[in-house]
Amino acid sequence: MTTTATTATTARERMQRAKDASRTVGLLSDADKAEALRAIATALEAETAAIVSANADDLARGRESGLSEGLLDRLRLDGARVAALASAVRDVADLPDPVGRVLDERILPTGVSLQKVSVPFGVVGSIYEARPNVTVDIAALALRSGNAVVLRGGTAAQSSNAALVEVMRGALSARGIDPEAIQTVDDFGRDGANALMQARGLVDVLVPRGSAQLIETVVTQSSVPVIETGAGVVHIVLDTTAPLEWAEQIVVNAKAQRPSVCNAVETVLVLKDAAERLIPPVSAALESAGVTIHGDETVRALVPTAVPAVDEDWATEHMSLDLSMRVVDDLDDALEHIRRYSTHHTESIITADDARAERFLAEVDSAVVMANASTRFTDGGEFGFGAEVGISTQKLHARGPMGLPELTSTKWLARGSGQIRA
Amino acid sequence: MTTTATTATTARERMQRAKDASRTVGLLSDADKAEALRAIATALEAETAAIVSANADDLARGRESGLSEGLLDRLRLDGARVAALASAVRDVADLPDPVGRVLDERILPTGVSLQKVSVPFGVVGSIYEARPNVTVDIAALALRSGNAVVLRGGTAAQSSNAALVEVMRGALSARGIDPEAIQTVDDFGRDGANALMQARGLVDVLVPRGSAQLIETVVTQSSVPVIETGAGVVHIVLDTTAPLEWAEQIVVNAKAQRPSVCNAVETVLVLKDAAERLIPPVSAALESAGVTIHGDETVRALVPTAVPAVDEDWATEHMSLDLSMRVVDDLDDALEHIRRYSTHHTESIITADDARAERFLAEVDSAVVMANASTRFTDGGEFGFGAEVGISTQKLHARGPMGLPELTSTKWLARGSGQIRA
Repeated sequence: MTTTATTATTARERMQRAKDASRTVGLLSDADKAEALRAIATALEAETAAIVSANADDLARGRESGLSEGLLDRLRLDGARVAALASAVRDVADLPDPVGRVLDERILPTGVSLQKVSVPFGVVGSIYEARPNVTVDIAALALRSGNAVVLRGGTAAQSSNAALVEVMRGALSARGIDPEAIQTVDDFGRDGANALMQARGLVDVLVPRGSAQLIETVVTQSSVPVIETGAGVVHIVLDTTAPLEWAEQIVVNAKAQRPSVCNAVETVLVLKDAAERLIPPVSAALESAGVTIHGDETVRALVPTAVPAVDEDWATEHMSLDLSMRVVDDLDDALEHIRRYSTHHTESIITADDARAERFLAEVDSAVVMANASTRFTDGGEFGFGAEVGISTQKLHARGPMGLPELTSTKWLARGSGQIRA
Repeated sequence: MTTTATTATTARERMQRAKDASRTVGLLSDADKAEALRAIATALEAETAAIVSANADDLARGRESGLSEGLLDRLRLDGARVAALASAVRDVADLPDPVGRVLDERILPTGVSLQKVSVPFGVVGSIYEARPNVTVDIAALALRSGNAVVLRGGTAAQSSNAALVEVMRGALSARGIDPEAIQTVDDFGRDGANALMQARGLVDVLVPRGSAQLIETVVTQSSVPVIETGAGVVHIVLDTTAPLEWAEQIVVNAKAQRPSVCNAVETVLVLKDAAERLIPPVSAALESAGVTIHGDETVRALVPTAVPAVDEDWATEHMSLDLSMRVVDDLDDALEHIRRYSTHHTESIITADDARAERFLAEVDSAVVMANASTRFTDGGEFGFGAEVGISTQKLHARGPMGLPELTSTKWLARGSGQIRA
């Protein structure tokens, strides 16, 4: 009890330091922030050896504790990966300053002039898993938008994260910027995460990144406002009039190009009038790309190699070359299935019928709704944001791919000359 | 235990009905929504007798349970107040539709056309206290923005709220709109509030309205995203160069025009170099308006009638003709006091020095920051929004006075012709 309380207090002290630092960081000019990020990029490159060595400790611990090769690979930093990290930081430096934009302007009848301007949140918190690149990513995005940042990364990457944070803080110090603007609470373990989730008043917004379970925990336990960056049980509907070529190309691209990401399709719903025409060739194209189809009875009658879909499949984000496929009666039936199982990330319809495309666009309640395009386009980079903070599946504040502007809040400025309210 | 579970299930069923209804309500045209509100206004007028009679039950219960005259007055509905309610609903009907605005538009390099459009949240929940007019207010604002609504009003107003909800639902039915779009969970008591706070997935956003304690409870206990409409410990700083006339008029207006509202000033900070010049006349003007000054030692040396300020005063939203007054060394000291005690609602500086005004505007971290204007201007009506959902003191999604657009989310629509990601 005493230990926990002491630990929590100390994590809180770090967050208080982040909040204090946020005051000066929030007032930095566009050029100062960009130069600070470029200095961080240079420092990361200069300290590659130290970073890779700290990472080696994590990898050794990971091997001992039996991490899979896949997870070890996500954890690994080498010279090329550190260089890529530095390059990503320079890209963020090149983005336009999201702070100080005038979003609304009006003169009140009394003559008071009113402006709504974008301002930094203050302190951005993030709880995330395995990959140490997220440490640099989130810190760079937070600083570029004038925020201080409190990081809680995965235990597996603790030494790497500590080294990365030290390098970044050093680069800030060298430029006369308060290094307390970057904090980690990794060393407090679970208590660090708990302190972060209870830091209402010190931390302004919390962005969890990682598994559905991690996000669910943060969403339900945090009293700090959360931006949910969610899992994607993503659907594609093949309408009666879907052109075969589009159906084939889009479904294969959406599943097989990169199966482990949230914008990959998980379930294909085929309208029954198009089942015989579309399912055999689309399935053949999928299987050529290495995809295993989990089909309902009608699908399996057309695709003998398909494995039987179980109820659980419809709610599953496979993150692999597995795809659920179901035949539905009509568009209403497809919409009903999506309402039931979608995580409100991205859905697409393939159709030659504009009216039905527009109905789908209007009625599906997801962050991104598409007609005749691959769900893989749901991405900050593809949308032209230059960087991506995450993909929000909630409706408050930000929805869909989030760029730098989504890391800002607003403030109303009123300039008067003695006006009082009548 | 069994009772609670059953009750919660039933409250959940009502919320599920609201969610189902939100699908059709979200697709209503601008004209349909406006006409529905006008029908509600007409129905409220037509049913005045039934509403006033239900309200009489609440008033009788309130008297029995010893409610103060002030609270009884807030609870009371008579013909004039019902007419005012109906008129407010017509005003909301006249506002522009916040749904369907195109907020961003871009063509991706592959030719996919992308639009970010405003969409209803879906289901808006509200937990609030005493005044039955909030029932109609929130329902009208939610419907105008295409949302269904789940209401949990104060127990003291339960009969009035039930009557108002019945009239509104009847008016929707008569126009062929799903009446399930308006739900109340008042009759479940505390369980209704709990069910609403746990309704993540059914309710998209929760707006608490009422005491600081109510809001704190909702913010810390809700897993549904909350928009915090906060209490106001509002500050005015009298700078060294503050013109006496502005100081007098603004401080008196900000405190005495309507002391019980959140944008009324609670604390005046006077820079020490201006103390002798400003405090005696400003205090005299305040006292003429009936204000009791709670002063620190320096203030009391200048204003013998002031009562001694205690530490608690600086953190208190008086909601009355009481005002805390303190002398500070300089602007830094004033900013430090504000950082410590402000609820981040509204602060204003009175100064003749533009550079210092701009510093105050930049550095104070509140929803509305003013120079040389009364804090009473922080109001949706004054800002020209036509209606006010509340005044947000959080930084996520909305900050400051919220109008209809703040009751919408966004959705990205992508229209392609077979594009896949390279």
